[in-house]
Amino acid sequence: MNCIFCDIVEKRAKAEILYENDLVISFLDIRPVNYGHALVIPKNHYKDFLSMPKSELDEVIKITQKISSAVYNSLKPDGFNVITNNGTAAGQSVFHFHFHIIPRFTNDSFSFRPQLKNYENGTMKEYAEKIKSEIKL
Amino acid sequence: MNCIFCDIVEKRAKAEILYENDLVISFLDIRPVNYGHALVIPKNHYKDFLSMPKSELDEVIKITQKISSAVYNSLKPDGFNVITNNGTAAGQSVFHFHFHIIPRFTNDSFSFRPQLKNYENGTMKEYAEKIKSEIKL
Repeated sequence: MNCIFCDIVEKRAKAEILYENDLVISFLDIRPVNYGHALVIPKNHYKDFLSMPKSELDEVIKITQKISSAVYNSLKPDGFNVITNNGTAAGQSVFHFHFHIIPRFTNDSFSFRPQLKNYENGTMKEYAEKIKSEIKL
Repeated sequence: MNCIFCDIVEKRAKAEILYENDLVISFLDIRPVNYGHALVIPKNHYKDFLSMPKSELDEVIKITQKISSAVYNSLKPDGFNVITNNGTAAGQSVFHFHFHIIPRFTNDSFSFRPQLKNYENGTMKEYAEKIKSEIKL
């Protein structure tokens, strides 16, 4: 399997590593939205958020919080986003689960205003019922 | 304290609730990017990702994964984003921590192409060193 993030985990590919432990590694995105844009990934290969086992997801979110704090305290941005994209339509380009941590500055180039929709009468409840029917705990 | 999400938790404000337990509640965003756009929040009030205690964060991410799966399986989008915005500059408008789950469709109106930056010689390492100096485990 050809996966650039697995190559980084195995040190076959270079990266500017911020932190690693047995389960998780964090490094800088080589093409940042803003400087300091970091990624946090499980060392094991899982293609997306839905395929993450709970124990490793807990470790990834823990380290994502720690790295977010470090990005925030070191670079002093005005804010930050934590994002995971799942599927090409959502912007995923490497199919190894990762969180982006993106430092943000007022009126930076990443700002966007999505066209928010409104629910017509009754459709909000219909959508909720559809989703609720697929919740499996 | 005036918080619309606390009002939803306390049932003082209406919402189309998808799921709730002792610690977490999930409901539809009333102004969705796409229909089925869901939010997952801790019932206790924390202003952002950095202020989340580990135990409640684990529960929030667990339920976020479950609701993401339900959104994906029920609405059959082409993909989805999971996002938390922290600070006004990052798009946060309600200062009660929440994950957005946004179903995505190829070429939908949310698509955007951030202008990715390049690191000049040596600056990538400088950024990494700054961040690493603030990592506290």
